[in-house]
Amino acid sequence: MTECKEKLAVVLVSGGLDSATTLGIAADQGFTCHAISFDYGQRNRFELNSAAAVAKFGGVRAHRIVHLDLSASAGFGASALTDEIDVPKDTAVQSGIPVTYVPARNTIFLSIALGYAEVIGAFDIFIGVNAIDYSGYPDCRPEFIESFEATANLATAAAVEGKGRFKIHAPLIRMNKAQIIRTGLALGVDYSLTHSCYDPDSGGAACGRCDSCRLRLAGFTEAGTADPIRYQG
Amino acid sequence: MTECKEKLAVVLVSGGLDSATTLGIAADQGFTCHAISFDYGQRNRFELNSAAAVAKFGGVRAHRIVHLDLSASAGFGASALTDEIDVPKDTAVQSGIPVTYVPARNTIFLSIALGYAEVIGAFDIFIGVNAIDYSGYPDCRPEFIESFEATANLATAAAVEGKGRFKIHAPLIRMNKAQIIRTGLALGVDYSLTHSCYDPDSGGAACGRCDSCRLRLAGFTEAGTADPIRYQG
Repeated sequence: MTECKEKLAVVLVSGGLDSATTLGIAADQGFTCHAISFDYGQRNRFELNSAAAVAKFGGVRAHRIVHLDLSASAGFGASALTDEIDVPKDTAVQSGIPVTYVPARNTIFLSIALGYAEVIGAFDIFIGVNAIDYSGYPDCRPEFIESFEATANLATAAAVEGKGRFKIHAPLIRMNKAQIIRTGLALGVDYSLTHSCYDPDSGGAACGRCDSCRLRLAGFTEAGTADPIRYQG
Repeated sequence: MTECKEKLAVVLVSGGLDSATTLGIAADQGFTCHAISFDYGQRNRFELNSAAAVAKFGGVRAHRIVHLDLSASAGFGASALTDEIDVPKDTAVQSGIPVTYVPARNTIFLSIALGYAEVIGAFDIFIGVNAIDYSGYPDCRPEFIESFEATANLATAAAVEGKGRFKIHAPLIRMNKAQIIRTGLALGVDYSLTHSCYDPDSGGAACGRCDSCRLRLAGFTEAGTADPIRYQG
């Protein structure tokens, strides 16, 4: 018999820099982590390979990839991440909601993570959303995360029966990219495994020009270190 | 040019009696309906055929079937509806949360319906949950529906940009089964197309003995009419 109960967490791992850092933070807080990733018809097929590498490096107990088609052909779409809409490049990051917005994505991902958490007996869910660099996404804001947490505690048998209270952890939500990178480096996160580009070439090299690449590169510059991933050209 | 704008709704259609009635109510309220159903690894494979028949009969503009594996083999499970757990039969309906509970199911289904609604420009989502006959399911209660609605309005670009406000309609939530059946019959719902049994035989005939069959049969009896579907034996 062990004296202390193991702390389980579900961590959403996309393969990007933010979720890799989030996994590092969850592990550092003593959680035994189960990673969950989504194959949702995203154009960038390298993300899932990165997710697997990040999860493995992060020492997760299990890594689930949930298949869910949110592409245009399934009646969803209307996002540059899943559709044949051009990813903006070389433009200033726009104000307002970006074309890369996927309708209700974080609500869907958190809901599935919630179901998975309930099955494995976890009450802690980690998501690497960030309200600073992508303030245009409504489902990356603190008020969304708080509201989802309240809903989760009304939705589930585990919460309603008083076994515990679900907590949605969004440890990066008020950090900028440089702060995220410094935090991850201090925790030993290997950013060479991550992938952020919205529009990589066929070999997986990042474009360096889309919003995501530009924020990432600026973050590494500000953090005073080189980005270890490959860029085109 | 039309003078009044078309009212679009997304209706969750499972193939059961409740969602068929809900679709009838949404159509009666003047909504142009898009049906959405989920293939989530449920043991009852007849549900999706019924869902297609109900949606077609209900005159929906489109019917989407979203594939999402919530079964044990995908790391989910722990429900008699998706796992090799016996469906209770011939027992009094138990108090508490039934073994047929699927973790976070309605949160997941509503989240995906929300994303679909945002894509098609709908702000009204109909779900046939019921707090009376299945009060054991936490995600069938009014407080859950209200909380999800609040989250939806924080989660989505359409709401945050002020294009509209999402409304989760649960018109059956305070009806008992007989009231639901009377309502549907008055609206011309064809219950012969529906399917409620948790454990049908290989030909699709209902067992008549599981909780779902027994509530359905009692509802038809109380409504003073015969259930038009086939039962075993």
